[in-house]
Amino acid sequence: MDPFLENLARYQARVEAALDRRLPAAGILPARLHQAMRYATLDGGKRLRAALVYATAEALGAEAAGADVPAASVELIHAYSLVHDDLPSMDDDDLRRGKPTCHKVFGEAMALLAGDALQSLAFELLAGDPALAVAPEVRLEMLHRLARAAGAAGMAGGQAIDLEAVGRTLSLPELENMHIHKTGALIRTAVGLGVLYAGAGGTARAAALDEYAKCLGLAFQIHDDILDVEGDAEVMGKTGGADRARDKPTYPALLGLAEAKAAAREWCQAALASLGPLGDNGWMLRRVAEYAVTRNR
Amino acid sequence: MDPFLENLARYQARVEAALDRRLPAAGILPARLHQAMRYATLDGGKRLRAALVYATAEALGAEAAGADVPAASVELIHAYSLVHDDLPSMDDDDLRRGKPTCHKVFGEAMALLAGDALQSLAFELLAGDPALAVAPEVRLEMLHRLARAAGAAGMAGGQAIDLEAVGRTLSLPELENMHIHKTGALIRTAVGLGVLYAGAGGTARAAALDEYAKCLGLAFQIHDDILDVEGDAEVMGKTGGADRARDKPTYPALLGLAEAKAAAREWCQAALASLGPLGDNGWMLRRVAEYAVTRNR
Repeated sequence: MDPFLENLARYQARVEAALDRRLPAAGILPARLHQAMRYATLDGGKRLRAALVYATAEALGAEAAGADVPAASVELIHAYSLVHDDLPSMDDDDLRRGKPTCHKVFGEAMALLAGDALQSLAFELLAGDPALAVAPEVRLEMLHRLARAAGAAGMAGGQAIDLEAVGRTLSLPELENMHIHKTGALIRTAVGLGVLYAGAGGTARAAALDEYAKCLGLAFQIHDDILDVEGDAEVMGKTGGADRARDKPTYPALLGLAEAKAAAREWCQAALASLGPLGDNGWMLRRVAEYAVTRNR
Repeated sequence: MDPFLENLARYQARVEAALDRRLPAAGILPARLHQAMRYATLDGGKRLRAALVYATAEALGAEAAGADVPAASVELIHAYSLVHDDLPSMDDDDLRRGKPTCHKVFGEAMALLAGDALQSLAFELLAGDPALAVAPEVRLEMLHRLARAAGAAGMAGGQAIDLEAVGRTLSLPELENMHIHKTGALIRTAVGLGVLYAGAGGTARAAALDEYAKCLGLAFQIHDDILDVEGDAEVMGKTGGADRARDKPTYPALLGLAEAKAAAREWCQAALASLGPLGDNGWMLRRVAEYAVTRNR
């Protein structure tokens, strides 16, 4: 088997088990809330953000086994953002990862609460989960980075820029700025948590990895926009063409499909180039960057 | 002037200024998100939770001036919960603190994001704000407590119990359990953060204060239910009778108004009794408990 796919499957299994153990049990009250949280988080995600935490840790010589808590935390933030993003007042999506969206199954109010509680859980784990064996200062830095990446200066801010942009024509710098916040901040933080976990904060390799993550985030998002245009809805498990139907600003809409593909490849190349200081140890992160612009879901 | 009201005003001014300095500026992009966050947080709250952080700190001999960060964090969690609670899919409230609710002014999607970003900001401050001068381990314990109090085992869990209870008749223990989560967890945590800030964690006084906070939380909530029945909507700045209109389980509905008032007084008495170990230093917390069951908003 391709060692990349093998590693990816190993990371996915790790974080799935870590999340399963840490999400509140479906049989304990308030059961519907717990069920909604589990439904929105478990099964079916690509787990790209968790994979970045693990792959970064391993590229820096640390054990993936000890990185479950940051990997789970970043996936919890991602899962909560999808639940809220799918709500009728936001994107009003019925399908996610091939399943009805959380509010379709549990109702809007419970989905709202489930998203809220998933966000809290991410910080609860980083603050106190004993499976994370790092110094208190490192935990705090992880918490600070994740909270900033989730909030107004990161993901939520990017969503707000997106909201305000619907129906407007953005310039390329404006579109980039939106995505740097909306998806880029969390991807960059996933790599940053891997660096902090591995004890490599402040090093030249940390700076290289941060540059890698910035480029990867844009490559990933441009490819996402491309998939919305020409992806297979069945493979993706969500409705295709949704961006255009909502008049959302996207790279293909702004640049045309061919130019958008070229831009994705360029950002991927820039990501690969920044991994120079890691030498052979960067192989998995290289493959992740290639995967980000070739995946079909 | 009554020293209680003087202190309360001092606490309110402190946390208002602390929040104002820490919320993102209304003129910086994404401006509408920042405006919604500020609108939902600044001006007009009772600031009971912040007052509990400050008053607990002072009762234990610590300076209120250093407790701005935990006080602001707990108010941010409270503010976010009100924004989401008022959304059409939840309580669908138009009025809060005498002003149109956040989604009435900024729209549902932006209000949802503002709530999300306020939650992130609470944890960002506790994780990294330099104005909080405590050991990293203490910060982590504060973060852990606040995250648990906000999430499925606390406030969000209580909201979920509430959702599931609409239209059902709860027993008194079920109603108490709902409120212990929905409002009690955050009130208890406010006192807990004051204890941690003052460096009194694990002491007999900490245990007494925790008991106080548990009793206060119930007294406060029962009085809230009573205000919904017989309070002056104009003074409260929100619609009266809303609980009954929604067929929500409340103390007056379950016990009758006279019994509910007696229960509020009993919990207040229990709160006062638990303050014994603090001697004269507990005077402000005593007054807060009395205020909780006599306030008219």
